[in-house]
Amino acid sequence: MVERLNRGLIQVYTGDGKGKTTAAIGLAMRALGNGLKVYMIQFMKGQIFYGELKIAQDYSPDFVIKQCGRPDFVNPVNPDPVDVKLAEDALKHAEGVIKEGKYDIVILDEINVAVKFGLIKLENVLPILKNKPEHVELVLTGRYAAPEIIEIADLVTEMRLIKHYYDRGVQARKGIER
Amino acid sequence: MVERLNRGLIQVYTGDGKGKTTAAIGLAMRALGNGLKVYMIQFMKGQIFYGELKIAQDYSPDFVIKQCGRPDFVNPVNPDPVDVKLAEDALKHAEGVIKEGKYDIVILDEINVAVKFGLIKLENVLPILKNKPEHVELVLTGRYAAPEIIEIADLVTEMRLIKHYYDRGVQARKGIER
Repeated sequence: MVERLNRGLIQVYTGDGKGKTTAAIGLAMRALGNGLKVYMIQFMKGQIFYGELKIAQDYSPDFVIKQCGRPDFVNPVNPDPVDVKLAEDALKHAEGVIKEGKYDIVILDEINVAVKFGLIKLENVLPILKNKPEHVELVLTGRYAAPEIIEIADLVTEMRLIKHYYDRGVQARKGIER
Repeated sequence: MVERLNRGLIQVYTGDGKGKTTAAIGLAMRALGNGLKVYMIQFMKGQIFYGELKIAQDYSPDFVIKQCGRPDFVNPVNPDPVDVKLAEDALKHAEGVIKEGKYDIVILDEINVAVKFGLIKLENVLPILKNKPEHVELVLTGRYAAPEIIEIADLVTEMRLIKHYYDRGVQARKGIER
């Protein structure tokens, strides 16, 4: 068991392939198995049941998942002001959780997309990353990671889609995709 | 909650980036959160504590992780006969678990590497994939996925290393990498 991370880093999972959010969840589980605490903030996701919500309940309060969006898709070109407000509030909340330093790992799920769609400003995200407490590990997921975020990050993995069954008309499946 | 998957597919996570095994674990957790059962067979890993082992204990018997290797690194050029035997036994065990069909998702962790290093033969792996029960989802992880496996798979994601702190001399950290 580990007490705290000596030095928390910044990880980014981006790209058009599958496995970004699930890698973050797997990382969360490995950390929980080592006695660490994990807080996941999901941008642009809300009121939809994902299997991971049940798991977070099982490990509460050491594993928290906070959904900060609506079930509807966000308009990437002209986002609804409601979605902008939800994402801005999510970022403020994330900043508070990170600064507090109570959770060893803070996952900002889909934050890259929230930036890309203009829901939150990159200039408001960067200082939060730069000023994080030393011991806190940050994990950012979502396509379209900004070059400035990649620059700051310690670890960047691109998930590349090589082959996908969606192309063959198979829909998202309960138990697997959610 | 889902009773069973109507149709299990074959997923592959490969490439030199991070997040292959953790994506498989995240996928396992999402499935467990939906009431599915998961069996993970880890090739070439053994007697080392990973955080996920603790998690599997928590969800036993619905989540099983079986380590089928030794703690030592496998020699990729001239693998020790002991490692060959362990991997061959792991594959036989995997075949049994898959055929039995009791577990909705069977994860063959690092199997791509076991094939690449010549511990197990591709010609022995392919029939297991082709003859899996309809409802069983297979997840194969590890670098160097063989073209024949990619051909059979429904979903293939390549994790690409864009930036890694190992390059800066940071070692694998307990709670994160294991």
